[in-house]
Amino acid sequence: MTRKAVVLYSGGLDSTTCMAIAKSEGFVPYAMSFSYGQRHSVELTKALANATKVGAAGHHLVEFDLRKIGGSALTADIEVPKGGVDENAIPVTYVPARNTIFLSFALGWAEVLGAFDIFIGVNALDYSGYPDCRPEYIDAFETMANLATKAAVEGKGRYRIHSPLISLTKAEIIRRGMALGVDYALTHSCYDPTPEGLSCGVCDSCRLRLKGFAEAGVKDPVAYVPNGK
Amino acid sequence: MTRKAVVLYSGGLDSTTCMAIAKSEGFVPYAMSFSYGQRHSVELTKALANATKVGAAGHHLVEFDLRKIGGSALTADIEVPKGGVDENAIPVTYVPARNTIFLSFALGWAEVLGAFDIFIGVNALDYSGYPDCRPEYIDAFETMANLATKAAVEGKGRYRIHSPLISLTKAEIIRRGMALGVDYALTHSCYDPTPEGLSCGVCDSCRLRLKGFAEAGVKDPVAYVPNGK
Repeated sequence: MTRKAVVLYSGGLDSTTCMAIAKSEGFVPYAMSFSYGQRHSVELTKALANATKVGAAGHHLVEFDLRKIGGSALTADIEVPKGGVDENAIPVTYVPARNTIFLSFALGWAEVLGAFDIFIGVNALDYSGYPDCRPEYIDAFETMANLATKAAVEGKGRYRIHSPLISLTKAEIIRRGMALGVDYALTHSCYDPTPEGLSCGVCDSCRLRLKGFAEAGVKDPVAYVPNGK
Repeated sequence: MTRKAVVLYSGGLDSTTCMAIAKSEGFVPYAMSFSYGQRHSVELTKALANATKVGAAGHHLVEFDLRKIGGSALTADIEVPKGGVDENAIPVTYVPARNTIFLSFALGWAEVLGAFDIFIGVNALDYSGYPDCRPEYIDAFETMANLATKAAVEGKGRYRIHSPLISLTKAEIIRRGMALGVDYALTHSCYDPTPEGLSCGVCDSCRLRLKGFAEAGVKDPVAYVPNGK
């Protein structure tokens, strides 16, 4: 019997690796992406183009607009930081309740698909400031999910939220993905790319990505602005 | 100091009563409504027209489309039942993960507003079949919310999900609302109204509403189709 899984898929390095891990564990992955008014909408364009190339059996795009709520550099008119990650503060790129909203839609789709497994590529090391990237948060969402849904309450199965990257370094994620055959040219990470889709190389997300490739001893195949913006 | 609260507001009898209860407890209510592809979109039209009339200090409409996910008589092409509520089955009007999605958006808005209180008019008696209307679900969501958010993790407050109607009968809800001055002419309940906005009188939601008014000994002020559809 094939088991379906919903994989939260941004088109980025982490979620693409997550999809490969879901496949390697025997799941048929269904990719779910979100258009929520994020600045880095090139991410979404790439996600739409690449989902099936990286192994998704289906792809569902959920659209809503978090800009009307605001409260984050990713959705409101707050400058995206380029001075490196402050280890002691929750970054301004934190989007209120974002992962909770994403996982809630994934839960709804999983129930309709008859899937009980949801994969999310959160990482507690690189994003130590994000409360919704911690194991205790993921566990609490899983508990709630099993009380929220008809399929769980009727005993058809138990929902599991998989976060296989949560304790890995970026270099470990890249090595894991390379071992599973992930083509990282089909991934995008930059928060603030050029209109042509070149990565800036200096935002938090680019810095973490470049550091990860350097530590993994692998050349990053995506294109960057030659000398930074 | 005024305390803000986010109130999930459909424009219906329960959520309107919930808003009045939030006000009576000293909160400044901010109404949040959802356009999710529901059949009963007249509900939404009324919610947009009535939110401030029933006391909301602000109103936020979140738009997305659950029809693409499907799985419910309220959003997919499944007949809305008119034969009365089957007490032993989860109704086909159950929408997968709907309250979880709603509460997740409310959590995000609450964090941006600086509110720590969210009101939801769920009811465990009338909707005993809906898993996401039970106290254990509400408690699990609250636990998760306090792990998910920057404001909670930084110790600025503790989120509370209020469900003041959860153990009340429809008649008790109506009596409570009448005591607080709710104008029930400004509420709408029908799942399947006429294009002119007349309530059908026979869907699950109309039946529960009419029974509630009858038991409360109050005349329902909304307009119904003369002899049923």
